[in-house]
Amino acid sequence: MKVNILKPVLVSNQERAKENRKFFDRANSLVLNIIGSPGSGKTSVIENIVKRLKCKYKILVIEGDIKGSIDSERLSRLKIDTIQINTQTECHLDAFMIAQALPKIEKQYDLILIENVGNLVCPAEFEIGEDYKVAILSTPEGDDKPIKYPLLFHLAKVVVINKIDLLQHLNFKIKKARKNILDKNPKVLIFEVSAKNGKGFDKLVDFIEKELTKKK
Amino acid sequence: MKVNILKPVLVSNQERAKENRKFFDRANSLVLNIIGSPGSGKTSVIENIVKRLKCKYKILVIEGDIKGSIDSERLSRLKIDTIQINTQTECHLDAFMIAQALPKIEKQYDLILIENVGNLVCPAEFEIGEDYKVAILSTPEGDDKPIKYPLLFHLAKVVVINKIDLLQHLNFKIKKARKNILDKNPKVLIFEVSAKNGKGFDKLVDFIEKELTKKK
Repeated sequence: MKVNILKPVLVSNQERAKENRKFFDRANSLVLNIIGSPGSGKTSVIENIVKRLKCKYKILVIEGDIKGSIDSERLSRLKIDTIQINTQTECHLDAFMIAQALPKIEKQYDLILIENVGNLVCPAEFEIGEDYKVAILSTPEGDDKPIKYPLLFHLAKVVVINKIDLLQHLNFKIKKARKNILDKNPKVLIFEVSAKNGKGFDKLVDFIEKELTKKK
Repeated sequence: MKVNILKPVLVSNQERAKENRKFFDRANSLVLNIIGSPGSGKTSVIENIVKRLKCKYKILVIEGDIKGSIDSERLSRLKIDTIQINTQTECHLDAFMIAQALPKIEKQYDLILIENVGNLVCPAEFEIGEDYKVAILSTPEGDDKPIKYPLLFHLAKVVVINKIDLLQHLNFKIKKARKNILDKNPKVLIFEVSAKNGKGFDKLVDFIEKELTKKK
């Protein structure tokens, strides 16, 4: 007689994430899990990165949304491959959802950008096979968000502070935000950008290119 | 022999929400469940409402946060009662968390404002015993959010479009946002406000006062 031992969801998610990781490793793909609030500018940040790297590297974007395909349609205008995942009622991507997308990845990609569902909480709790998490924090959200949503900022390797073009109209203090982020995660890399006017993206893209070179 | 039939979480949450509702009904309290993204301005909207109504009505604010008590400390400066709920790893308030706070409610309050965890997804799925949900959408998030996070906008009785002071610096179109909200929910009431400069709060507060009068 067979005994089934059910494991907690997070453990089996982690195991599935490791399998996803093996798949990406076989293709030497750099995989970024991009997490931020609704409207923090995840898609716009991806657009800026893609525009600067698409001539030199093969890029795939995987879009996680509860419903619809607004963002993947928007990104496909940049003439790159996209895969849309609709999570239905789930507020985050998990490793099993990514696993379902893997059979659709028929080419080798240098860079795979995964846009998670807009949410600062749950997406941080689920590994999906990424190299690392990139947290997007937009200035209108306030400089206290790293204190109120600590896990993401603790786990991210990179934090992108977006919408710096709005700074003069807001009470957001960059210095305070940096302190709040570094308190959670002293080793994190912080980039300040405006996805609207492109400011700050050269440094971020330089960093990503260095990471891409390591994969070669 | 006793047979235990376990019910799905959401069913028992709903039952607990009904019990919470009975508690609030006995005190004739109007209870609003305030939901929005991190940084959409939930606390600032509450501050504006409290300032305009606190001389006339007894108000309690229940603050839901993953960690910390930044917002309830901020609100207690307005000299009103607050209760802080820390959800730890949970990305939303549920009816059981509110039930745990009920024994701490020792007075009669006319208005109970519950600030949910910053998140557009899961908080919408859990009734907590509220009269209705108030969705906060801030202009920097983009006018497409009602399409991408439809459940909240479908369920809310009131949508507050916040940060209208920033409109001139953004691509956010009020007309498009209104259409996207009304497509999900034709009966919804939409208020446009700036929690920064107080614009638009007279209409919103008038509406809340009418609702308070109905409870008498």
